[in-house]
Amino acid sequence: MKERIIKSALNLFWRYGIRSVTMDDIARDLGISKRTIYQHYSDKEAILALVIQEEIRTQKCEMEKLEELAENPIEEAMYATVQMQETLADMNPTLLYDLKKYYPNAWELFQTYKHEYIIKNMRENLLKGIEMGLYRPDIDVEVLSLLRVEQIVLAFDPTVYPAKKFNIMHVQTQFLGHFLRGILSEKGFEYYNTIKDKPATELNIHEKCQNNT
Amino acid sequence: MKERIIKSALNLFWRYGIRSVTMDDIARDLGISKRTIYQHYSDKEAILALVIQEEIRTQKCEMEKLEELAENPIEEAMYATVQMQETLADMNPTLLYDLKKYYPNAWELFQTYKHEYIIKNMRENLLKGIEMGLYRPDIDVEVLSLLRVEQIVLAFDPTVYPAKKFNIMHVQTQFLGHFLRGILSEKGFEYYNTIKDKPATELNIHEKCQNNT
Repeated sequence: MKERIIKSALNLFWRYGIRSVTMDDIARDLGISKRTIYQHYSDKEAILALVIQEEIRTQKCEMEKLEELAENPIEEAMYATVQMQETLADMNPTLLYDLKKYYPNAWELFQTYKHEYIIKNMRENLLKGIEMGLYRPDIDVEVLSLLRVEQIVLAFDPTVYPAKKFNIMHVQTQFLGHFLRGILSEKGFEYYNTIKDKPATELNIHEKCQNNT
Repeated sequence: MKERIIKSALNLFWRYGIRSVTMDDIARDLGISKRTIYQHYSDKEAILALVIQEEIRTQKCEMEKLEELAENPIEEAMYATVQMQETLADMNPTLLYDLKKYYPNAWELFQTYKHEYIIKNMRENLLKGIEMGLYRPDIDVEVLSLLRVEQIVLAFDPTVYPAKKFNIMHVQTQFLGHFLRGILSEKGFEYYNTIKDKPATELNIHEKCQNNT
Protein backbone atom coordinates (compact mmCIF):
# COMPACT_ATOMS: atom_id res chain seq x y z
CA MET A 1 0.00 0.00 0.00
CA LYS A 2 2.82 2.44 0.89
CA GLU A 3 4.30 2.00 -2.56
CA ARG A 4 0.95 2.39 -4.29
CA ILE A 5 0.38 5.69 -2.47
CA ILE A 6 3.77 7.02 -3.60
CA LYS A 7 3.16 5.93 -7.19
CA SER A 8 -0.27 7.56 -7.30
CA ALA A 9 1.02 10.79 -5.74
CA LEU A 10 3.91 10.91 -8.21
CA ASN A 11 1.52 10.62 -11.14
CA LEU A 12 -0.86 13.24 -9.78
CA PHE A 13 1.89 15.74 -8.87
CA TRP A 14 3.48 15.21 -12.27
CA ARG A 15 0.29 16.00 -14.11
CA TYR A 16 -1.30 18.69 -11.95
CA GLY A 17 1.55 20.23 -9.96
CA ILE A 18 1.87 19.80 -6.22
CA ARG A 19 -0.24 22.56 -4.75
CA SER A 20 -3.47 21.56 -6.42
CA VAL A 21 -3.32 17.89 -5.39
CA THR A 22 -4.96 17.06 -2.03
CA MET A 23 -4.92 13.94 0.16
CA ASP A 24 -8.52 13.46 -1.01
CA ASP A 25 -7.35 13.36 -4.64
CA ILE A 26 -4.80 10.67 -3.84
CA ALA A 27 -7.37 8.62 -1.92
CA ARG A 28 -9.87 8.94 -4.77
CA ASP A 29 -7.22 7.97 -7.33
CA LEU A 30 -6.49 4.76 -5.42
CA GLY A 31 -10.09 4.03 -4.45
CA ILE A 32 -9.19 3.95 -0.76
CA SER A 33 -10.15 6.06 2.26
CA LYS A 34 -8.12 9.06 3.34
CA ARG A 35 -7.76 7.31 6.70
CA THR A 36 -5.78 4.51 5.06
CA ILE A 37 -3.33 7.06 3.71
CA TYR A 38 -2.95 8.70 7.13
CA GLN A 39 -2.08 5.29 8.59
CA HIS A 40 1.09 5.41 6.49
CA TYR A 41 1.90 9.11 6.08
CA SER A 42 1.33 12.04 8.40
CA ASP A 43 0.77 14.63 5.64
CA LYS A 44 1.32 15.58 2.01
CA GLU A 45 4.86 16.77 2.70
CA ALA A 46 5.83 13.33 3.99
CA ILE A 47 4.51 11.78 0.79
CA LEU A 48 6.23 14.43 -1.30
CA ALA A 49 9.63 13.67 0.24
CA LEU A 50 9.32 10.01 -0.74
CA VAL A 51 8.02 10.92 -4.19
CA ILE A 52 11.11 13.04 -4.77
CA GLN A 53 13.41 10.27 -3.55
CA GLU A 54 11.68 7.82 -5.87
CA GLU A 55 11.97 10.21 -8.83
CA ILE A 56 15.66 10.80 -8.10
CA ARG A 57 16.24 7.02 -7.99
CA THR A 58 14.55 6.65 -11.39
CA GLN A 59 16.56 9.51 -12.90
CA LYS A 60 19.85 8.08 -11.63
CA CYS A 61 18.98 4.69 -13.09
CA GLU A 62 18.17 6.34 -16.42
CA MET A 63 21.39 8.30 -16.53
CA GLU A 64 23.42 5.18 -15.85
CA LYS A 65 21.65 3.32 -18.65
CA LEU A 66 22.25 6.25 -21.05
CA GLU A 67 25.93 6.26 -20.23
CA GLU A 68 26.13 2.56 -21.09
CA LEU A 69 24.18 2.98 -24.34
CA ALA A 70 26.05 6.03 -25.67
CA GLU A 71 29.24 5.56 -27.67
CA ASN A 72 30.65 8.97 -26.76
CA PRO A 73 29.83 12.04 -24.62
CA ILE A 74 28.15 13.93 -27.50
CA GLU A 75 25.76 11.06 -28.08
CA GLU A 76 25.22 10.79 -24.33
CA ALA A 77 24.20 14.46 -24.09
CA MET A 78 21.83 14.07 -27.05
CA TYR A 79 20.28 10.89 -25.63
CA ALA A 80 19.81 12.65 -22.29
CA THR A 81 17.80 15.39 -24.00
CA VAL A 82 15.62 12.90 -25.88
CA GLN A 83 15.12 11.10 -22.59
CA MET A 84 14.14 14.35 -20.90
CA GLN A 85 11.68 15.01 -23.71
CA GLU A 86 9.98 11.66 -23.15
CA THR A 87 9.88 12.06 -19.39
CA LEU A 88 8.65 15.64 -19.47
CA ALA A 89 6.05 15.20 -22.19
CA ASP A 90 3.27 15.05 -19.61
CA MET A 91 4.87 17.02 -16.79
CA ASN A 92 3.05 20.07 -15.49
CA PRO A 93 5.45 22.98 -16.15
CA THR A 94 4.73 24.55 -12.75
CA LEU A 95 6.04 21.49 -10.89
CA LEU A 96 9.62 22.64 -10.29
CA TYR A 97 8.56 26.13 -9.32
CA ASP A 98 5.81 24.88 -7.02
CA LEU A 99 8.51 22.88 -5.34
CA LYS A 100 10.95 25.72 -5.00
CA LYS A 101 8.42 28.22 -3.75
CA TYR A 102 6.11 26.22 -1.50
CA TYR A 103 8.02 23.10 -0.46
CA PRO A 104 11.52 24.20 0.53
CA ASN A 105 12.38 20.91 2.26
CA ALA A 106 11.56 18.83 -0.80
CA TRP A 107 13.30 21.39 -2.99
CA GLU A 108 16.39 20.99 -0.83
CA LEU A 109 16.40 17.24 -1.53
CA PHE A 110 16.34 18.00 -5.23
CA GLN A 111 19.13 20.59 -4.88
CA THR A 112 21.35 18.12 -3.08
CA TYR A 113 20.75 15.60 -5.85
CA LYS A 114 21.55 18.27 -8.45
CA HIS A 115 24.81 19.15 -6.77
CA GLU A 116 25.97 15.71 -5.89
CA TYR A 117 24.89 13.85 -8.96
CA ILE A 118 23.89 15.87 -12.03
CA ILE A 119 26.79 18.34 -11.83
CA LYS A 120 29.22 15.47 -11.25
CA ASN A 121 27.75 13.64 -14.23
CA MET A 122 28.11 16.73 -16.42
CA ARG A 123 31.70 17.26 -15.30
CA GLU A 124 32.53 13.68 -16.25
CA ASN A 125 30.87 14.16 -19.64
CA LEU A 126 33.05 17.20 -20.32
CA LEU A 127 36.25 15.50 -19.14
CA LYS A 128 35.53 12.41 -21.26
CA GLY A 129 34.85 14.61 -24.31
CA ILE A 130 38.14 16.45 -23.87
CA GLU A 131 39.97 13.15 -23.45
CA MET A 132 38.44 11.81 -26.68
CA GLY A 133 39.35 15.01 -28.53
CA LEU A 134 35.68 15.84 -29.18
CA TYR A 135 35.58 18.90 -26.90
CA ARG A 136 38.08 21.76 -26.84
CA PRO A 137 40.88 21.21 -24.33
CA ASP A 138 40.74 24.86 -23.20
CA ILE A 139 37.23 24.91 -21.75
CA ASP A 140 36.87 25.50 -18.01
CA VAL A 141 35.15 22.26 -17.00
CA GLU A 142 34.06 23.56 -13.60
CA VAL A 143 32.46 26.75 -14.94
CA LEU A 144 30.75 25.12 -17.93
CA SER A 145 29.38 22.05 -16.16
CA LEU A 146 27.64 24.38 -13.70
CA LEU A 147 26.41 26.51 -16.60
CA ARG A 148 24.91 23.50 -18.36
CA VAL A 149 23.01 22.34 -15.27
CA GLU A 150 21.70 25.87 -14.61
CA GLN A 151 20.55 26.10 -18.23
CA ILE A 152 18.48 22.96 -17.89
CA VAL A 153 16.80 24.47 -14.82
CA LEU A 154 16.44 27.88 -16.52
CA ALA A 155 14.29 26.45 -19.31
CA PHE A 156 11.67 25.66 -16.63
CA ASP A 157 11.65 29.18 -15.22
CA PRO A 158 8.26 30.65 -16.16
CA THR A 159 9.48 34.19 -15.47
CA VAL A 160 12.02 33.84 -18.30
CA TYR A 161 10.39 31.32 -20.64
CA PRO A 162 6.64 31.47 -19.96
CA ALA A 163 4.84 28.33 -21.11
CA LYS A 164 2.35 30.45 -23.07
CA LYS A 165 5.09 31.68 -25.35
CA PHE A 166 7.72 28.93 -25.28
CA ASN A 167 7.68 25.17 -25.55
CA ILE A 168 10.03 23.87 -22.87
CA MET A 169 11.42 21.09 -25.02
CA HIS A 170 12.11 23.45 -27.92
CA VAL A 171 14.04 25.66 -25.47
CA GLN A 172 15.94 22.63 -24.11
CA THR A 173 16.81 21.49 -27.65
CA GLN A 174 18.08 24.96 -28.58
CA PHE A 175 20.12 25.04 -25.35
CA LEU A 176 21.66 21.63 -26.01
CA GLY A 177 22.61 22.39 -29.63
CA HIS A 178 24.04 25.73 -28.59
CA PHE A 179 25.89 24.30 -25.59
CA LEU A 180 27.49 21.48 -27.60
CA ARG A 181 28.62 23.79 -30.41
CA GLY A 182 30.18 26.03 -27.79
CA ILE A 183 32.49 23.27 -26.55
CA LEU A 184 33.18 21.16 -29.66
CA SER A 185 36.66 20.82 -31.09
CA GLU A 186 37.09 20.62 -34.87
CA LYS A 187 37.00 16.84 -34.70
CA GLY A 188 33.91 17.11 -32.50
CA PHE A 189 32.18 19.35 -35.04
CA GLU A 190 32.84 16.89 -37.86
CA TYR A 191 31.26 14.11 -35.84
CA TYR A 192 28.39 16.28 -34.55
CA ASN A 193 27.43 17.36 -38.08
CA THR A 194 26.97 13.72 -39.09
CA ILE A 195 24.53 12.93 -36.26
CA LYS A 196 22.77 16.16 -35.29
CA ASP A 197 19.80 15.76 -37.63
CA LYS A 198 19.23 12.05 -37.15
CA PRO A 199 15.76 11.41 -35.78
CA ALA A 200 15.78 10.66 -32.09
CA THR A 201 15.36 7.00 -31.24
CA GLU A 202 12.82 5.90 -28.68
CA LEU A 203 14.90 4.90 -25.72
CA ASN A 204 12.29 3.36 -23.41
CA ILE A 205 14.65 3.61 -20.50
CA HIS A 206 12.11 5.41 -18.34
CA GLU A 207 9.73 2.48 -18.14
CA LYS A 208 12.51 0.02 -17.40
CA CYS A 209 13.78 2.16 -14.57
CA GLN A 210 10.33 2.66 -13.09
CA ASN A 211 9.49 -1.04 -13.17
CA ASN A 212 12.75 -1.75 -11.43
CA THR A 213 11.29 -0.59 -8.12
CA MET B 1 23.85 68.78 -3.49
CA LYS B 2 21.23 66.24 -4.64
CA GLU B 3 23.59 65.04 -7.36
CA ARG B 4 26.57 64.83 -5.01
CA ILE B 5 24.54 62.65 -2.64
CA ILE B 6 23.63 60.26 -5.46
CA LYS B 7 27.21 60.09 -6.67
CA SER B 8 28.56 59.36 -3.20
CA ALA B 9 25.90 56.72 -2.53
CA LEU B 10 26.62 55.04 -5.88
CA ASN B 11 30.31 54.80 -5.04
CA LEU B 12 29.68 53.47 -1.53
CA PHE B 13 27.06 50.91 -2.63
CA TRP B 14 29.33 49.79 -5.44
CA ARG B 15 32.23 49.14 -3.12
CA TYR B 16 30.53 47.86 0.03
CA GLY B 17 27.14 46.54 -1.10
CA ILE B 18 23.88 48.21 -0.13
CA ARG B 19 23.02 46.73 3.25
CA SER B 20 26.19 47.76 4.99
CA VAL B 21 26.06 51.42 3.89
CA THR B 22 24.13 53.76 6.24
CA MET B 23 22.94 57.36 5.89
CA ASP B 24 25.74 58.21 8.35
CA ASP B 25 28.31 56.72 5.96
CA ILE B 26 27.04 58.85 3.09
CA ALA B 27 27.06 62.00 5.26
CA ARG B 28 30.60 61.23 6.45
CA ASP B 29 31.75 60.57 2.87
CA LEU B 30 30.48 64.01 1.79
CA GLY B 31 31.52 65.82 4.96
CA ILE B 32 27.94 67.05 5.53
CA SER B 33 25.37 66.43 8.25
CA LYS B 34 22.80 63.65 8.02
CA ARG B 35 20.16 66.36 8.34
CA THR B 36 21.25 67.85 5.01
CA ILE B 37 20.69 64.48 3.35
CA TYR B 38 17.23 64.17 4.89
CA GLN B 39 16.32 67.57 3.44
CA HIS B 40 16.61 65.99 0.00
CA TYR B 41 15.76 62.32 0.52
CA SER B 42 13.40 60.64 2.96
CA ASP B 43 15.43 57.44 3.34
CA LYS B 44 18.07 55.13 1.85
CA GLU B 45 15.55 53.50 -0.46
CA ALA B 46 14.76 56.86 -2.08
CA ILE B 47 18.47 57.40 -2.71
CA LEU B 48 18.85 53.85 -3.98
CA ALA B 49 16.10 54.32 -6.58
CA LEU B 50 17.91 57.34 -8.02
CA VAL B 51 21.26 55.57 -7.88
CA ILE B 52 19.82 52.73 -9.95
CA GLN B 53 18.34 55.16 -12.48
CA GLU B 54 21.69 56.93 -12.75
CA GLU B 55 23.53 53.63 -13.23
CA ILE B 56 21.05 52.53 -15.89
CA ARG B 57 21.53 55.84 -17.72
CA THR B 58 25.31 55.34 -17.70
CA GLN B 59 25.01 51.74 -18.91
CA LYS B 60 22.70 52.74 -21.77
CA CYS B 61 25.12 55.47 -22.80
CA GLU B 62 27.97 52.96 -22.76
CA MET B 63 26.11 50.40 -24.83
CA GLU B 64 25.29 53.00 -27.45
CA LYS B 65 28.92 54.07 -27.67
CA LEU B 66 30.04 50.43 -28.00
CA GLU B 67 27.61 49.86 -30.83
CA GLU B 68 29.08 52.84 -32.67
CA LEU B 69 32.68 51.74 -32.07
CA ALA B 70 32.26 48.08 -33.05
CA GLU B 71 32.55 47.03 -36.66
CA ASN B 72 30.35 43.98 -36.28
CA PRO B 73 28.21 42.16 -33.66
CA ILE B 74 31.03 39.79 -32.61
CA GLU B 75 33.30 42.71 -31.84
CA GLU B 76 30.42 44.45 -30.08
CA ALA B 77 29.86 41.45 -27.78
CA MET B 78 33.57 41.27 -27.01
CA TYR B 79 33.81 45.02 -26.32
CA ALA B 80 30.80 44.74 -24.03
CA THR B 81 32.57 42.11 -21.95
CA VAL B 82 35.77 44.17 -21.71
CA GLN B 83 33.61 47.10 -20.70
CA MET B 84 31.88 45.00 -18.05
CA GLN B 85 35.29 43.95 -16.78
CA GLU B 86 36.37 47.55 -16.33
CA THR B 87 33.10 48.58 -14.70
CA LEU B 88 32.95 45.59 -12.37
CA ALA B 89 36.59 45.59 -11.33
CA ASP B 90 35.71 47.33 -8.07
CA MET B 91 32.11 46.21 -7.65
CA ASN B 92 31.20 44.33 -4.50
CA PRO B 93 29.98 40.93 -5.73
CA THR B 94 27.06 40.90 -3.29
CA LEU B 95 25.53 44.04 -4.82
CA LEU B 96 23.08 42.40 -7.23
CA TYR B 97 21.98 39.84 -4.68
CA ASP B 98 21.58 42.43 -1.93
CA LEU B 99 19.33 44.26 -4.33
CA LYS B 100 17.25 41.23 -5.26
CA LYS B 101 16.80 40.01 -1.72
CA TYR B 102 16.42 43.16 0.37
CA TYR B 103 15.34 45.93 -2.01
CA PRO B 104 12.61 44.49 -4.23
CA ASN B 105 11.45 47.89 -5.53
CA ALA B 106 14.92 48.87 -6.72
CA TRP B 107 15.40 45.35 -8.09
CA GLU B 108 12.19 45.78 -10.07
CA LEU B 109 13.64 48.92 -11.71
CA PHE B 110 16.64 46.89 -12.75
CA GLN B 111 14.46 44.06 -14.06
CA THR B 112 12.43 46.45 -16.19
CA TYR B 113 15.64 47.85 -17.64
CA LYS B 114 16.89 44.33 -18.30
CA HIS B 115 13.74 43.38 -20.14
CA GLU B 116 13.22 46.54 -22.06
CA TYR B 117 16.75 47.38 -22.96
CA ILE B 118 19.39 44.65 -22.52
CA ILE B 119 17.30 41.85 -24.01
CA LYS B 120 16.30 44.09 -26.93
CA ASN B 121 19.96 44.99 -27.45
CA MET B 122 20.95 41.31 -27.43
CA ARG B 123 18.19 40.43 -29.87
CA GLU B 124 19.42 43.13 -32.25
CA ASN B 125 22.98 41.84 -31.93
CA LEU B 126 21.85 38.35 -32.93
CA LEU B 127 19.73 39.59 -35.84
CA LYS B 128 22.57 41.75 -37.14
CA GLY B 129 25.00 38.82 -36.89
CA ILE B 130 22.67 36.56 -38.85
CA GLU B 131 22.19 39.28 -41.48
CA MET B 132 25.95 39.66 -41.85
CA GLY B 133 26.41 35.88 -42.16
CA LEU B 134 28.48 35.75 -38.97
CA TYR B 135 25.91 33.83 -36.91
CA ARG B 136 24.02 30.70 -37.97
CA PRO B 137 20.69 31.48 -39.60
CA ASP B 138 18.95 28.63 -37.75
CA ILE B 139 19.36 29.92 -34.19
CA ASP B 140 16.21 30.83 -32.28
CA VAL B 141 16.89 34.52 -31.61
CA GLU B 142 14.21 34.84 -28.94
CA VAL B 143 15.38 31.81 -26.91
CA LEU B 144 19.10 32.59 -27.15
CA SER B 145 18.94 36.33 -26.45
CA LEU B 146 17.12 35.51 -23.19
CA LEU B 147 19.70 32.81 -22.45
CA ARG B 148 22.57 35.23 -22.92
CA VAL B 149 21.11 37.83 -20.57
CA GLU B 150 20.36 35.20 -17.93
CA GLN B 151 23.94 33.92 -18.22
CA ILE B 152 25.33 37.34 -17.47
CA VAL B 153 23.16 37.48 -14.34
CA LEU B 154 24.02 33.87 -13.42
CA ALA B 155 27.73 34.62 -13.15
CA PHE B 156 26.84 36.90 -10.21
CA ASP B 157 24.86 34.24 -8.37
CA PRO B 158 26.92 33.34 -5.30
CA THR B 159 24.94 30.14 -4.77
CA VAL B 160 26.24 28.84 -8.12
CA TYR B 161 29.58 30.62 -8.53
CA PRO B 162 30.74 31.58 -5.02
CA ALA B 163 33.27 34.40 -5.07
CA LYS B 164 35.64 32.35 -2.92
CA LYS B 165 36.01 29.78 -5.65
CA PHE B 166 35.34 31.70 -8.87
CA ASN B 167 36.44 35.00 -10.32
CA ILE B 168 33.34 36.62 -11.80
CA MET B 169 35.14 38.03 -14.80
CA HIS B 170 36.75 34.69 -15.60
CA VAL B 171 33.26 33.15 -15.52
CA GLN B 172 31.90 35.94 -17.75
CA THR B 173 34.75 35.48 -20.22
CA GLN B 174 34.16 31.71 -20.39
CA PHE B 175 30.45 32.37 -20.90
CA LEU B 176 31.06 34.87 -23.70
CA GLY B 177 33.52 32.63 -25.58
CA HIS B 178 31.19 29.67 -25.20
CA PHE B 179 28.09 31.65 -26.18
CA LEU B 180 29.71 33.10 -29.32
CA ARG B 181 31.05 29.74 -30.48
CA GLY B 182 27.58 28.31 -30.02
CA ILE B 183 26.05 30.72 -32.53
CA LEU B 184 28.87 31.34 -35.05
CA SER B 185 28.53 30.32 -38.69
CA GLU B 186 31.59 29.02 -40.53
CA LYS B 187 32.33 32.51 -41.78
CA GLY B 188 31.85 33.79 -38.23
CA PHE B 189 34.34 31.23 -36.88
CA GLU B 190 36.97 32.27 -39.40
CA TYR B 191 36.63 35.87 -38.31
CA TYR B 192 36.40 35.04 -34.59
CA ASN B 193 39.62 33.00 -34.69
CA THR B 194 41.51 36.02 -36.02
CA ILE B 195 40.42 38.32 -33.16
CA LYS B 196 39.70 36.14 -30.12
CA ASP B 197 43.19 36.32 -28.61
CA LYS B 198 43.88 39.98 -29.28
CA PRO B 199 44.47 41.84 -26.04
CA ALA B 200 41.48 43.87 -24.95
CA THR B 201 41.81 47.58 -25.61
CA GLU B 202 41.07 50.09 -22.92
CA LEU B 203 37.80 51.60 -23.95
CA ASN B 204 37.39 54.42 -21.43
CA ILE B 205 33.73 54.73 -22.26
CA HIS B 206 32.68 54.47 -18.65
CA GLU B 207 34.27 57.71 -17.62
CA LYS B 208 32.89 59.58 -20.61
CA CYS B 209 29.39 58.38 -19.87
CA GLN B 210 29.67 59.28 -16.18
CA ASN B 211 30.94 62.77 -16.85
CA ASN B 212 28.07 63.31 -19.23
CA THR B 213 25.68 63.81 -16.34
